[in-house]
Amino acid sequence: MVFAGRPSRPASHLVLASGGRAPAYANSRAFSSSLPRNKERLVILGSGWGGYEVLRAIDKERWNVTMISPNNYFNFTPLLASCAVGTLEFRCATEPVRRYSPEVVAYQAWCDHIDFRQKRLQCMPATPPLSFETKSAPKADATTTQFPGTGTPFTLTYDKLVIAVGAYSQTFDVPGVKEHAHFLKDVKDARAIRTRILECFEQANQPTISDVERRKLLNFCIVGGGPTGVEFAAELHDLLHTEMERHYPGLTRFAKISMYDVAPQILGMFDESLVKYAEKTFKRDGISIFTSHHVERVEPGKLFVKEQGEVPFGLLVWSTGLAPNPLVQSASDVKKDLKTSSIITNDHLNVLKEDGTPYSDVWAIGDAAMIEDARLPATAQVANQKAKYLTKKLNRLVKDKDSPKPFEFHNQGSLAYIGNWKAIYDRSGTGNNVMNKETGRLAWLLWRSAYFTMTLSVRNKILVPTYWFLNWIFGRDLTRF
Amino acid sequence: MVFAGRPSRPASHLVLASGGRAPAYANSRAFSSSLPRNKERLVILGSGWGGYEVLRAIDKERWNVTMISPNNYFNFTPLLASCAVGTLEFRCATEPVRRYSPEVVAYQAWCDHIDFRQKRLQCMPATPPLSFETKSAPKADATTTQFPGTGTPFTLTYDKLVIAVGAYSQTFDVPGVKEHAHFLKDVKDARAIRTRILECFEQANQPTISDVERRKLLNFCIVGGGPTGVEFAAELHDLLHTEMERHYPGLTRFAKISMYDVAPQILGMFDESLVKYAEKTFKRDGISIFTSHHVERVEPGKLFVKEQGEVPFGLLVWSTGLAPNPLVQSASDVKKDLKTSSIITNDHLNVLKEDGTPYSDVWAIGDAAMIEDARLPATAQVANQKAKYLTKKLNRLVKDKDSPKPFEFHNQGSLAYIGNWKAIYDRSGTGNNVMNKETGRLAWLLWRSAYFTMTLSVRNKILVPTYWFLNWIFGRDLTRF
Repeated sequence: MVFAGRPSRPASHLVLASGGRAPAYANSRAFSSSLPRNKERLVILGSGWGGYEVLRAIDKERWNVTMISPNNYFNFTPLLASCAVGTLEFRCATEPVRRYSPEVVAYQAWCDHIDFRQKRLQCMPATPPLSFETKSAPKADATTTQFPGTGTPFTLTYDKLVIAVGAYSQTFDVPGVKEHAHFLKDVKDARAIRTRILECFEQANQPTISDVERRKLLNFCIVGGGPTGVEFAAELHDLLHTEMERHYPGLTRFAKISMYDVAPQILGMFDESLVKYAEKTFKRDGISIFTSHHVERVEPGKLFVKEQGEVPFGLLVWSTGLAPNPLVQSASDVKKDLKTSSIITNDHLNVLKEDGTPYSDVWAIGDAAMIEDARLPATAQVANQKAKYLTKKLNRLVKDKDSPKPFEFHNQGSLAYIGNWKAIYDRSGTGNNVMNKETGRLAWLLWRSAYFTMTLSVRNKILVPTYWFLNWIFGRDLTRF
Repeated sequence: MVFAGRPSRPASHLVLASGGRAPAYANSRAFSSSLPRNKERLVILGSGWGGYEVLRAIDKERWNVTMISPNNYFNFTPLLASCAVGTLEFRCATEPVRRYSPEVVAYQAWCDHIDFRQKRLQCMPATPPLSFETKSAPKADATTTQFPGTGTPFTLTYDKLVIAVGAYSQTFDVPGVKEHAHFLKDVKDARAIRTRILECFEQANQPTISDVERRKLLNFCIVGGGPTGVEFAAELHDLLHTEMERHYPGLTRFAKISMYDVAPQILGMFDESLVKYAEKTFKRDGISIFTSHHVERVEPGKLFVKEQGEVPFGLLVWSTGLAPNPLVQSASDVKKDLKTSSIITNDHLNVLKEDGTPYSDVWAIGDAAMIEDARLPATAQVANQKAKYLTKKLNRLVKDKDSPKPFEFHNQGSLAYIGNWKAIYDRSGTGNNVMNKETGRLAWLLWRSAYFTMTLSVRNKILVPTYWFLNWIFGRDLTRF
């Protein structure tokens, strides 16, 4: 049964899957605009770097926009490592998707299936089922389904579709990772990590704990030497050597940061000389780097490393890249990359059918997608640039203007914080020969100022420096709740 | 076995209960001071309005201070209702006890038993046991033991003891309250409530939900018409009629706030005319007040009211006063109030033995205590004034100066926010005849400015108005994570 509202209303493309109860309030929602009322329905799947940027910049007067995402917010991922140690507050790193309501309809839901022929999406609410209307504690890991298969599924139709569902955390099927490690992809992860760090210190501070146990509790392990792992190690080092040293005197000497990677060096995407600089800085800071090491299994409070045997830890942060999203994995009738399972698009970002011809109404961006024969890194930068390109295209399309030229990636370089007010900045390979490598304080300044040119709202553009300033003056807050 | 450290070191009064493992790091902690090294050991139980104020103002150069509290922070309770709806961020309403470390030793632990004769405290760590070193989600209710009976107990000795353990939430043994209602005594409660409010709206926004279910989900019930319940209702009303109306259009018309109380009127401690004003304001705002109503039982998503039958709700906040703390309840060899089980003190705040003679080294303040024959209200104001008095006394005592005159309470009146930039202020009974009752905007201004004369740190004195300003300009953040 297709819902019988007037086509001009935002929620009118709702198709009820099973229950058949009419969403009366959606129907009665008033909508006024001086623009043509037969707006096309643009559905955006995902509220990450790709989806949120489309949501932000799309012409909401000309498009009838619906956002489907299991989170009602966007994660500003580069700030999550700071949030995980309290350099910034959690809400500095998020933007609500409802910032653009009421123009935009948003459902907190998973998309489980795309029917490209009928242009229908099958969705599952990502809120808890009604039968459990009790206290709901925040969940620690957003990368898995919070409430699998419990809600009432519903169906939506679309005219145009943007697939920006992102990817999951890669675990390489190492047993115990999902159960006993923390990822760092979502603000919920950052909160769980911050709580756990403070808990480890409070535990280690108990008078009944032995020094051997203290050493175990205060071993902070990071698996994965990419920018996320490196920045978290750096931020954690800053925390340990400032507030923790001051407020848990005598305990920080038991604390240790250990970073593991299977590769022979960390920060694979950075220039050799910058990696050397980062490794040297880490070594001087007392952060142990174990490259060419293999984690075989994780148990509560300990991991098993092939080269070291049993390693007890108080906190384990796992950041070893991306795994395919289940929606993408299960999608049929689309061309997919054999190795990464990413959806293949043409250079206009249109999703390709299995026979290689493009869907003219479906685009895919971000970590879930890749352009045919162009292996770009799966980074926020690429997702964001693709989203900007796509938004421009859609905003021209709706005015019947020509589509822009094919997408081109402009590498703006990579930045990573390495602790102690230092960063590294790599612009080699961008074609720009001025300042193509930078280390130390200047790179740190670039790193910090980079956050003001991007997606953050004015509110967060005020809050972020406020917290930087307050925490610089008064120290990070060590309250655990 | 009494720990054999030198008496000049802060943690040297540690007595190991069972394990016998020496807390080596505590022993090796260096301590330097030009003051006499034989400082007496002052132990403070509790980090609330009483205990935290003593911690804040005590002469830490002359006292060897140890804080025992299950939380490593102080709750600035008057701001919790604001935090529960996002007018302020959670950390605006907390202050870490470690603000005063390393001078102060703090253990995150429960005190289970006081041996007044031997001057010993038996404590239980309030951190999770080591065998569960996995991800730890924040708990929703801090008023019950988080990890009952799982850690290794330890014993401390004291020279002077301040009992400021506070009280628990009263449930009147109504079945289901502890399981299905939210209290509002701790920042963890505020966080759980905020998450739940946003969850209710996201749930109600799902297209598969019927209007009948929407109405149930968006019924926000408050049991208890005291200042906490009233202020929460007021803040929630503000939220519903600003951000929620804007960002969930069509949903707020299903939303409803209902307040229940067994008494014939709300805000019992306020002057009659102010109560009338508050009730009138609430009525005009559409907040239903059900006085002389009795809640008999709570089940998931519904409560049973004697006068109304079954009442479905999306969120239930329970705030019906105080219940005795288990430590106080189980304490022997002290004089206790028959009705409230509070510890009885003399007017110098010394705890009384069962025979009525005072313990010269033990004081009790806050909601856990009451002065013999002086029935003061169990409020933050009384706790704070008693703490100030006691700190002055202790700071004189340590310099062998005379003890101050008996404690006298100076009623500074009661303030309550009632929504929509309005408050009520009652100073009748304070002996001051100027401005002894105030309503509306002026009272609101008084209400806001009252927060700047009190216990908050400079950090929070900056953060609180920053958030007031940002949320006034940009609206409250509706991110649910």
